[in-house]
Amino acid sequence: AQVGRILFLPGDGIGAEVMTEVRRVIGWLARRGIEFAVEEDLVGGAAYDVHGVPLTDATMAKANEIGTVMFGAVGGPKYDDLPFALKPERGLLRLRKEMDLFANLRPAIVFPALAGASSLKPELVEGLDVMILRELTGGVYFGEPRGITELADGQKRAVDTQVYTTSEIERVARVGFELARKRRNKVHSVEKANVMHTGVLWRQTVQALRDRDYPDVELEHMYADNCAMQLVRRPKQFDVIVTDNLFGDLLSDCAAMLTGSLGMLPSASLGAADANGRRKAMYEPVHGSAPDIAGQGIANPIACLMSFAMLLRYSFDLGAEADRLEKAISNVLDQGYRTADIAQDGCTRVSTSGMGDAILKEL
Amino acid sequence: AQVGRILFLPGDGIGAEVMTEVRRVIGWLARRGIEFAVEEDLVGGAAYDVHGVPLTDATMAKANEIGTVMFGAVGGPKYDDLPFALKPERGLLRLRKEMDLFANLRPAIVFPALAGASSLKPELVEGLDVMILRELTGGVYFGEPRGITELADGQKRAVDTQVYTTSEIERVARVGFELARKRRNKVHSVEKANVMHTGVLWRQTVQALRDRDYPDVELEHMYADNCAMQLVRRPKQFDVIVTDNLFGDLLSDCAAMLTGSLGMLPSASLGAADANGRRKAMYEPVHGSAPDIAGQGIANPIACLMSFAMLLRYSFDLGAEADRLEKAISNVLDQGYRTADIAQDGCTRVSTSGMGDAILKEL
Ligand SMILES: CC(C)[C@H](C(=O)O)[C@@H](O)C(=O)O
Ligand SMILES: CC(C)[C@H](C(=O)O)[C@@H](O)C(=O)O
Repeated sequence: AQVGRILFLPGDGIGAEVMTEVRRVIGWLARRGIEFAVEEDLVGGAAYDVHGVPLTDATMAKANEIGTVMFGAVGGPKYDDLPFALKPERGLLRLRKEMDLFANLRPAIVFPALAGASSLKPELVEGLDVMILRELTGGVYFGEPRGITELADGQKRAVDTQVYTTSEIERVARVGFELARKRRNKVHSVEKANVMHTGVLWRQTVQALRDRDYPDVELEHMYADNCAMQLVRRPKQFDVIVTDNLFGDLLSDCAAMLTGSLGMLPSASLGAADANGRRKAMYEPVHGSAPDIAGQGIANPIACLMSFAMLLRYSFDLGAEADRLEKAISNVLDQGYRTADIAQDGCTRVSTSGMGDAILKEL
Repeated sequence: AQVGRILFLPGDGIGAEVMTEVRRVIGWLARRGIEFAVEEDLVGGAAYDVHGVPLTDATMAKANEIGTVMFGAVGGPKYDDLPFALKPERGLLRLRKEMDLFANLRPAIVFPALAGASSLKPELVEGLDVMILRELTGGVYFGEPRGITELADGQKRAVDTQVYTTSEIERVARVGFELARKRRNKVHSVEKANVMHTGVLWRQTVQALRDRDYPDVELEHMYADNCAMQLVRRPKQFDVIVTDNLFGDLLSDCAAMLTGSLGMLPSASLGAADANGRRKAMYEPVHGSAPDIAGQGIANPIACLMSFAMLLRYSFDLGAEADRLEKAISNVLDQGYRTADIAQDGCTRVSTSGMGDAILKEL
């Protein structure tokens, strides 16, 4: 039976290569009677090459209509000198904003087979499982006014504006508390309330929501600079970290790198639930387009497959299938299969499709 | 002979305790004929307790007149609920802004005796020596408009503004290129030019300055999220990192933590040189007021003493004396003296003044 529709946006660089392996898993699900209708379109540099913009209005409309997007990656040196509004990233940011995907879930987990690959001492990261929840449609990414103006004396002046309202903060914090309840019941709310007014409002709003609706969840406030430190010092103290768009960008990358599993980490960006409990959503590997290895068939498809597992779980309530896919990935790692980015002595080196083969066999 | 005047602002928490050890080194210098006239005043919570503000106009005027400040630390739980404008941090931020200390130098170095104390694997940090240069008087810390407004429906809206002009970027980048020339000749300029307009202007301005005045210095541009990753992954790739006020806040704390020597790291905040080549400057240990250990006499005075060494070097051109102090500190560590924060098996545990004793003896 057809369970739903998905829009594939492979994008640039290794995006298309890793998405191919997701297609194969979709084929496997179909053979088991779980069918998806997949459409595909262009985003990023790939869209710019054909249409002159990093995302067309038609693609944007299609994403909103289908509601569930599998995203590869965007960007590459070829596009570095494009003006701001045409950069590949703008395609991604427009999708986030116009689908209103305000809650970005970035799990930083250490795969047991890879604990040794972290730059941190193994005892600090073994078993690490932190969920970074990043606000994704507000803050300095979209606030107005923004731009560069010429001053009289030949100087230029650039401005960006960080804006948050109570409700923007509340809705993402609510997701954080709900996540924590299913995990270890602890939330760190991260801002710079000692310097920024958005930080003051952030702290007040999160605290008030906790006191009103989530008195059972432990809440701690932490400054963003201290959080960057604590992630390096003792990452296991965290369960769920909820933070704004810009701090979330830095802190989630820092946390991802700690795991030593950067090529392995997924993300989900979720919108609000509608009357039927359905949310618009986009799923995306945390690694980027990796121009240096694109086209060689050696990229690690696991981050993308893990993102697809999140899609199964969050968009289609297929938790059992998601578990099964994640378990297959974990088994294949235990068996010693490794793509180049996670190569280890004594392990079997495989290509992108070789990793896909191993995972499908395990499934 | 008197070589100059210094304003001591010990502040809160362990600030006063560690500054006492600097007084002793000043006494030692005096006995060798290098005399400083030291004045002392209140800042932060200590100033609030007496005057109701975290920095009085009189203290501000004195800092500007004397021009060289040794700063301890500010803040503590007692002051957490003060309104924004009265928080201890405002005293610090006012000093930075009104003395126009735009260039904040934060060396992240690993003391050989402490390489094992890092959370990173020793081979990644041994010999690490990165200089983080943070813009300190612009960006989102001071941009207008800023504040929180009430909306009609009981909601609130908070705004912060990040602003940079060409000249603000140029003057700090120039300090970065000059530093790099005396080090390993490499600058990483860090922003989010893919998202922020201030980042675009930052990148253009730094590149133009490099091409015009520093063609001999290697320049690389890096996004802030990637920089947070790379600091964890391979910190030794960096020589000088130049970045804005907010990114510098997070990245310098992250880098400091990498070294495992957080209680040991100094900082210098410098203004522009006047006609006589003199700069206003403030020197400050990177660690904060550490309320949890304040008043126990166990704080590590080394960060503050290292900051004083920077004062000798940058404000009074006493490079030989600075070298000598740094060498004494390094020797004392090699001899196994440790305060509680860096305690190691088989080492001699000492108090704040015990560490001061050992360093003075070595001098
Ligand atoms: C590509 C870029 C615009 C994006 C961001 O800054 O959000 C990326 O770094 C991310 O974290 O998804
Ligand atoms: C105390 C605080 C205002 C300050 C800052 O954010 O600049 C501190 O974190 C620092 O890095 O010096």
